[in-house]
Amino acid sequence: MTRIALVQMQAKAGDVSANLARIAGAARQTAEAGASLLVAPELALTGYGAGDAIARLAEPTDGAMIGALEAIAAQHDIAILAGFPERAGATVYNSAAFVGTVGHATVYRKSHLYGDYERALFAPARPSGVIVEHAGLKFGLLICYDVEFPENVRRLAKAGAQAVLVPTALPAGDHAAFIARQMIAVRAFENQIFLAYANHCGADALFTYAGLSQIAAPDGTMLAGADAVEDTLLIATIDPSAFAGSAAQNTYLRDMRDEL
Amino acid sequence: MTRIALVQMQAKAGDVSANLARIAGAARQTAEAGASLLVAPELALTGYGAGDAIARLAEPTDGAMIGALEAIAAQHDIAILAGFPERAGATVYNSAAFVGTVGHATVYRKSHLYGDYERALFAPARPSGVIVEHAGLKFGLLICYDVEFPENVRRLAKAGAQAVLVPTALPAGDHAAFIARQMIAVRAFENQIFLAYANHCGADALFTYAGLSQIAAPDGTMLAGADAVEDTLLIATIDPSAFAGSAAQNTYLRDMRDEL
Repeated sequence: MTRIALVQMQAKAGDVSANLARIAGAARQTAEAGASLLVAPELALTGYGAGDAIARLAEPTDGAMIGALEAIAAQHDIAILAGFPERAGATVYNSAAFVGTVGHATVYRKSHLYGDYERALFAPARPSGVIVEHAGLKFGLLICYDVEFPENVRRLAKAGAQAVLVPTALPAGDHAAFIARQMIAVRAFENQIFLAYANHCGADALFTYAGLSQIAAPDGTMLAGADAVEDTLLIATIDPSAFAGSAAQNTYLRDMRDEL
Repeated sequence: MTRIALVQMQAKAGDVSANLARIAGAARQTAEAGASLLVAPELALTGYGAGDAIARLAEPTDGAMIGALEAIAAQHDIAILAGFPERAGATVYNSAAFVGTVGHATVYRKSHLYGDYERALFAPARPSGVIVEHAGLKFGLLICYDVEFPENVRRLAKAGAQAVLVPTALPAGDHAAFIARQMIAVRAFENQIFLAYANHCGADALFTYAGLSQIAAPDGTMLAGADAVEDTLLIATIDPSAFAGSAAQNTYLRDMRDEL
């Protein structure tokens, strides 16, 4: 059992220092609330809508940007998961770094890019099963559009993930509330896991974001949820034993046929 | 484009004649409403809660029970999908027969059995991809618990199904509304297909059913929905072109990685 926090924030496109400062503030609040882990949105460090600046700002995991994130995590003795553009030679990935309590940063690279904007900026990674152990629990990592594919969450659940952490940048639009609320809850329920979905709010020059961040429980209920516009911190307790009743009735992972 | 109907009914456990009569009434209403297809619940012909009588009542697809269903379909010039216990030698499957406009009956056998009750009565079939062409559209078939596994719906959508028809027997309980409403809508949305979920209502000696049958659209909206208790017929138009906007924005089948 541990408490986790999720920051729904308005990133400043292209301003890494400002975004690190916002995350540092959330990290302080996270520690003060007795939580051990903070989840920030997709590309939180540069802003999602930074456009061409993203390629210039991209850094390897051992660069200054993730170094600064590690320093914030160390200062508050918590773990942090935050999205950033990762440079790997000539390639740029849409990645998220988990830093703070597991030695070197663990990096997850987004496998399912959405739309022309992302495909122009990033290379897609092969679907992978990155799981981090933290506070005695197994956390799987995905980014945004990845979580909309049930196969990606299932792969992590089959590998033992008890919660999946999802930095995201879901734009406002016709289907945003359906995705952020109904689909995220179903992803949790159909695997009987927790799911933390950390979105941006506000707007930059290119996009308006949907907010609606949430932390969903294995029974499909919402443990904590933000509205569409607030810059805020959500906190919830991740305790699988509190949902043993739901797990006993909804035995998807046990009943799933090997052929699937 | 075609109109389909879905009957939410209170089956009489063990009384095939009574259940055929109820389906005949629904078939008449279906034809009168200008619909071309009627979907009835899981094991609609015997009742889901018929217990030990199910093995005695089970028949092959060319038996009298499906013959009577074919006669009803022919009389009203519609297709009918209804659940029945299928005998195949010494084996009994939890099956559904699609009769009426495609020559011989097409049978789908449930692959994912739920709980001790079903496992005592039926053999599970291998997951399959049964698709029926009707009125120029491709309809995939599943039964009840099968649809709760995203893999089963995905398999049909990848094979070209534009709608999935699901006879079900969802009992009332803590998670029934979540499954019947939220999960069914997400299964439709994540594949951009229609989904018709036909449940029982009322109770028999063994179970109380949740009702809440619905026909979901590709954009996750509910085209028609029943409450928890009413014995009723739902009707909706299946017109993929009416949801081209949703399909253009939510390109899951196109974006899904081959590795998945």
